[in-house]
Amino acid sequence: MAKIAILGFGTVGGGVLEVLRRNAASVSRRAGQPVEVKYILDIRDFSSHPDAALFVQSIDTILADPEIKVVVETIGGTKFAYPYVRKALESGRSVVTSNKEMVATYGAELLALAREHKAAFLFEASVGGGTPIITPMHQCLAANVISQVQGIVNGTTNFMLTKMAREEMGFEDALKIAQQLGYAETKDPGDDVDGPDACRKIAILASIAFGRHFYPRNIPTRGIRGITVADIAAAARLDCVIKLIAWARRDETGRVTAAVEPMLVPRSNQLAGVDDVFNAVLVRGDMLGDVVFYGKGAGRLPTASAVVADVIDALKHGAKVHDSLFWQPSEPFDGLLEDPTPATCYVRVKGLPATVLPALYGEGELVSDDGSEAAYLVTYIAPRGLEEAGRKAAALGGRVELVLRQLTD
Amino acid sequence: MAKIAILGFGTVGGGVLEVLRRNAASVSRRAGQPVEVKYILDIRDFSSHPDAALFVQSIDTILADPEIKVVVETIGGTKFAYPYVRKALESGRSVVTSNKEMVATYGAELLALAREHKAAFLFEASVGGGTPIITPMHQCLAANVISQVQGIVNGTTNFMLTKMAREEMGFEDALKIAQQLGYAETKDPGDDVDGPDACRKIAILASIAFGRHFYPRNIPTRGIRGITVADIAAAARLDCVIKLIAWARRDETGRVTAAVEPMLVPRSNQLAGVDDVFNAVLVRGDMLGDVVFYGKGAGRLPTASAVVADVIDALKHGAKVHDSLFWQPSEPFDGLLEDPTPATCYVRVKGLPATVLPALYGEGELVSDDGSEAAYLVTYIAPRGLEEAGRKAAALGGRVELVLRQLTD
Repeated sequence: MAKIAILGFGTVGGGVLEVLRRNAASVSRRAGQPVEVKYILDIRDFSSHPDAALFVQSIDTILADPEIKVVVETIGGTKFAYPYVRKALESGRSVVTSNKEMVATYGAELLALAREHKAAFLFEASVGGGTPIITPMHQCLAANVISQVQGIVNGTTNFMLTKMAREEMGFEDALKIAQQLGYAETKDPGDDVDGPDACRKIAILASIAFGRHFYPRNIPTRGIRGITVADIAAAARLDCVIKLIAWARRDETGRVTAAVEPMLVPRSNQLAGVDDVFNAVLVRGDMLGDVVFYGKGAGRLPTASAVVADVIDALKHGAKVHDSLFWQPSEPFDGLLEDPTPATCYVRVKGLPATVLPALYGEGELVSDDGSEAAYLVTYIAPRGLEEAGRKAAALGGRVELVLRQLTD
Repeated sequence: MAKIAILGFGTVGGGVLEVLRRNAASVSRRAGQPVEVKYILDIRDFSSHPDAALFVQSIDTILADPEIKVVVETIGGTKFAYPYVRKALESGRSVVTSNKEMVATYGAELLALAREHKAAFLFEASVGGGTPIITPMHQCLAANVISQVQGIVNGTTNFMLTKMAREEMGFEDALKIAQQLGYAETKDPGDDVDGPDACRKIAILASIAFGRHFYPRNIPTRGIRGITVADIAAAARLDCVIKLIAWARRDETGRVTAAVEPMLVPRSNQLAGVDDVFNAVLVRGDMLGDVVFYGKGAGRLPTASAVVADVIDALKHGAKVHDSLFWQPSEPFDGLLEDPTPATCYVRVKGLPATVLPALYGEGELVSDDGSEAAYLVTYIAPRGLEEAGRKAAALGGRVELVLRQLTD
């Protein structure tokens, strides 16, 4: 019998208890022993909960009990989660978390701490909401050098973009529906729609793929505000869809670039067909080529089931997992991991006639032209695409309202 | 330093040696030690090969060396592979294989033998040709009860069907190209085009998913001979593509059904966009919902990289993996795991006017009608769909040439 503790009894924490109970038989078989929740840490009052006896209010109660082998952290944020997880690892307990903010900020440090204390630190549920991505990446691709990771890792924005495309609905209306369905926060949906959530996830995937810590603050991040129904229609005429793509690449010189940005995705690309709240991540290995992991990117039980799979792993393999799931610490720097590669871009310009666009941006393709506003497809040289495009348009009295790069294979 | 042996120096065996050398640094880091090939067993003459010193002709030489921890089997077939693998496991060596025929036939027995001797028996490369499927299934979905597996698991037929659809090419021409490109065997392509290869793979996946051994001989299997350009065009009019689907399901009563068959796949289905030699497998878990694993289903280095990942796993975790990667033995039975569920079917009938089809098969949709030959979409009750459809048509002097069921979600 293995005893574990859950920190934080919110959506995911409650789901972990439920998955452990509903699938107790198969969990027990796969862990080699039954797995039981002995403590739940939550400062709120659960005295009338059927499991009231499990609740404690201090992490020290949990860490004082030698029976506890694994601690599950589902508090979220870093204020409490980070010191608690440090304490648990320092006491030699393995930790499983779904907390992407903590992993993206302190991952390298916590992995090193876990290794030092011969414990596991696992976080499959932090990316993809239950879809296996992290484990296959570090374990099944262990014989590969990874050169690229790209994917759709935020279910809320993908749901909204799908809704906007299918029902010719504007951003604000799509956001309202996402909020009504509980996919987006009502108070401040910015974490999803402006990209920070996707940014944390690609920071984690880049750290695994390239072996050192990448910080969210160094990853250029744009969300989907400003995408209009007209942009989506224009993309369709180019046989593309618009998706919020999180990507990270390492070139042959070892230089890593990364971004979160809405992109033109050709329909022939595997990511183009990923709709609604689904997530998909493409990983390119030097031996294996491209593999894609696809699944629903959110939800209480999917996320909880990934946490439970990690608990089983931690019980079985402990610190051995760090041979493959590990990255080196590094310092955040001033600046961004920007990509200087020339790219095909979709540019929406206001206040300039379509006829001047070739002179501004080179030979391209006119996608739409309503007289005052022109959508124009043009190949030109980045890096400072948006700014340069804007400067050029401004010099003639126009304004660049949107630039989308095209996703390449 | 971990020493291993490779049995069979063909395409995959040679690839394993290459992957271990090309990515020696990352393999070493992930395995926690360098991994070196000490012996290669092959009865052919490699005396002028740069690695001639590694070659041996008897399995006993390898098993007499206590330094050898893991044996890689890439001979194929069962005649030599099966007794060699038994011997290796009985000696306490872990075995990694890409041999789907052996796993589909003797999997339960070899897993039990491995467990008994505290060794690992791993075979990620037997399905998906390198794409991670088996490891995520048993490890990342450990907290799930799996109800369904369905996928495109034969790259050769998928390449051919893609070619037939894109270039309006007949089966024979597509087969010739597949043979020229080395995707299909020249002498006897039946293993791919008639379904046995896909059948072995779904037998393995069903055994993992449902916990007992399923034998290829109990899985109804049809290949893609008989699919015409006209069928593909008719499917397109129904907004579907034709794919060779391998599937296995367990219903709420615990009854398992499975098949390999060409099916009508609606374009909205994730498997519809899987083209060329790519493979994709969808797994449905009770907690996680649907996840899809997608990648190139073949090739020397992809397959070899999956073998090497398993070698790393075997070195690190040994027999512990069998808590999750294990299934019970069972006997093959007389009969087939047929699915009695009613299904929407596409029927191609020759020699009957379209007007009689509603009376024969119920209300449906006429897809095409060239006077003598009618393609007709109709909903009717299986199980003995093909036979019953044929009997009904024959009674009126016609002939059913093809029945395709539609894939449901």
